[in-house]
Amino acid sequence: MTVPALSSPVPTRADVFAAHEGGKLSTGLTAPLSDARDLAIAYTPGVAEVSRAIAAEPHLAARYTWTNRLVAVVSDGTAVLGLGDIGPRASLPVMEGKSALFKAFGGLDSIPLVLDTTDVDEIVETLVRLRPSFGAVNLEDVSAPRCFELERRLIEALDCPVMHDDQHGTAIVLLAALRGACTVQGRDLESLRIVVSGAGAAGVACARILRAAGARDVVVLDSRGTLVPGRAGVTGEKAALADVTNPRRISGGPAEALAGADVFVGLSSALLPEEYLAAMAPEAIVFALSNPDPEVHPHVAARYASIVATGRSDFPNQINNVLAFPGVFRGALDAGARRITEAMKLAAADAIASVASDDLAPDRIVPSPFDPRVAPAVSQAVADASTNG
Amino acid sequence: MTVPALSSPVPTRADVFAAHEGGKLSTGLTAPLSDARDLAIAYTPGVAEVSRAIAAEPHLAARYTWTNRLVAVVSDGTAVLGLGDIGPRASLPVMEGKSALFKAFGGLDSIPLVLDTTDVDEIVETLVRLRPSFGAVNLEDVSAPRCFELERRLIEALDCPVMHDDQHGTAIVLLAALRGACTVQGRDLESLRIVVSGAGAAGVACARILRAAGARDVVVLDSRGTLVPGRAGVTGEKAALADVTNPRRISGGPAEALAGADVFVGLSSALLPEEYLAAMAPEAIVFALSNPDPEVHPHVAARYASIVATGRSDFPNQINNVLAFPGVFRGALDAGARRITEAMKLAAADAIASVASDDLAPDRIVPSPFDPRVAPAVSQAVADASTNG
Repeated sequence: MTVPALSSPVPTRADVFAAHEGGKLSTGLTAPLSDARDLAIAYTPGVAEVSRAIAAEPHLAARYTWTNRLVAVVSDGTAVLGLGDIGPRASLPVMEGKSALFKAFGGLDSIPLVLDTTDVDEIVETLVRLRPSFGAVNLEDVSAPRCFELERRLIEALDCPVMHDDQHGTAIVLLAALRGACTVQGRDLESLRIVVSGAGAAGVACARILRAAGARDVVVLDSRGTLVPGRAGVTGEKAALADVTNPRRISGGPAEALAGADVFVGLSSALLPEEYLAAMAPEAIVFALSNPDPEVHPHVAARYASIVATGRSDFPNQINNVLAFPGVFRGALDAGARRITEAMKLAAADAIASVASDDLAPDRIVPSPFDPRVAPAVSQAVADASTNG
Repeated sequence: MTVPALSSPVPTRADVFAAHEGGKLSTGLTAPLSDARDLAIAYTPGVAEVSRAIAAEPHLAARYTWTNRLVAVVSDGTAVLGLGDIGPRASLPVMEGKSALFKAFGGLDSIPLVLDTTDVDEIVETLVRLRPSFGAVNLEDVSAPRCFELERRLIEALDCPVMHDDQHGTAIVLLAALRGACTVQGRDLESLRIVVSGAGAAGVACARILRAAGARDVVVLDSRGTLVPGRAGVTGEKAALADVTNPRRISGGPAEALAGADVFVGLSSALLPEEYLAAMAPEAIVFALSNPDPEVHPHVAARYASIVATGRSDFPNQINNVLAFPGVFRGALDAGARRITEAMKLAAADAIASVASDDLAPDRIVPSPFDPRVAPAVSQAVADASTNG
């Protein structure tokens, strides 16, 4: 198992721009095209046989085209990293990076498709028209609450795996990390009092997967306070979430929510003041996941919490989506799944947690993103959990 | 210069299907992603700098993304090879092959986008929405007459090079081949009597480029006979073409058109009977370009004509679009051109012809598709002919 040195020299701005010159992706050929015979096989006249076969039996497209291992990374550029709505053109370097990660970590081919529209109807319509061109859709960096409707509509409209990674990739890795932390501490996830700070894409999905995994006491905070049923002005995903969380009906803000809480999950970039941390229960678990600036510096958090995780590579316990999405899509495509179900997401989290299980410690609750065992384990677990339909 | 043996063993059906297993394309990374530092450069946090720079100065997308060397191969699957309207899914192996040719011959990256709509408005709208995702559009295998409107509309709507290769790629190589034949015979293109059989995508474009190159006597045949101004029921591109061709106002069919003609260009798959061939002028030039079955077998044509060409790799003088499109798109992208103009197409034809000029013979009027000098020469000529706007 290779774990990179945390002391890798920090790249300079010049390093970054030089590495992005000309973009980060390329296309290649799976077989040479160096003589007339190659050309007669890959193009005319040979290819006509393959096209004719697919016209007669459309399911053969999965076998004789690249689509069955091709993930479209789709964005409208409305919620890019911490930069916000910077538009499709400026989002493309991020989407190229995501496609590169699919290849490097999941062995999947991937193309970024950035869309010059933010209209949900138009995005759905565009991907329906393009459907024969790819095998799965990774939605990325689409702003909330549009992302919830867009994902739901795409899942209905497309007969292939669709996942908004900012929601579910984050949720899967969060759950895996919390399972790891529970194992280290000998505690049950079910009995923890968990506060999720942030009710955007990631916050909603994390609260949902924690509930699905058995957590009974999850409280979600947005910028106006805790979600409780009937709170004025709360609709849509948040209203639905209010109905299934906050069993003790805590009202108020972070002070009220965090008093006596076991777990803090930060997904909102709202700062976490030290006094709230001090009021958490003993053996607290703090996941300060906002990037690049965590809700609380991990050194500060460590004064109060037993286990601290961030989204950053320069601290221990990095909660990074790359642990999940390559294997999730690989497993779904390998299994011929039409949907990525809740069961598949839970299986992915369990697989990540079990890879780390032989070597757990307070500063090693999740595997390294570069642990080569992760993607195959996730892929296999997701494929096994697929009902193939 | 490497010319492949024409006697390469003909691939079997099993060879063809085995070579297409899993598709013919893959995506790759331009730099490794093997440790935390690589990840910090290619993805978060480093990539945010690049996205921020493009948000501030959108023209930087051409420099810091792959789009400036990325050609979208776009089809709706309505006129695929000789197979007709087989739909987008069955067309995909052909489009993957085309993308592979862009890479192998032009050093360009390329992705196939096959569309599940045949509506011109919808195709234009889809590509406008996807515009930030690519650098150029190669339209492929779209049926006539829709292809004319679609190409025109896309050229208006997109600020990047757009070319329907079945029209213009074919026309460019046809012109190059005819220039080669003229040089071998010591004749002027301007004075030739040329018959173009077929008024589909390729026929229209070939007639137009021949006129643009100076040919004065071009007669176009469709299934109902010669195009003449005012012919009943003729509209659109054909009507426009009738106005600028057939200066002797020949009416009738192939018998009338071919009597005394110097050049036959077959682009319709309509068979060319031997008696029409026999009625052509001395030193006739016959280009029987339909694939896989030429309008006349080259051995039969050779009894009457001095120079014979086909679209096939197993006979001399193969007129193959691969001589043109990789260099045309490469040159247009290298020059930052927004349009592929008539001047760029004529320059491409001249460049192909000049590569062959040191070694011309009746059975070598065009370079081999595998001649490594072709794409760089075409690319340079196209870039030089670009007005960059």
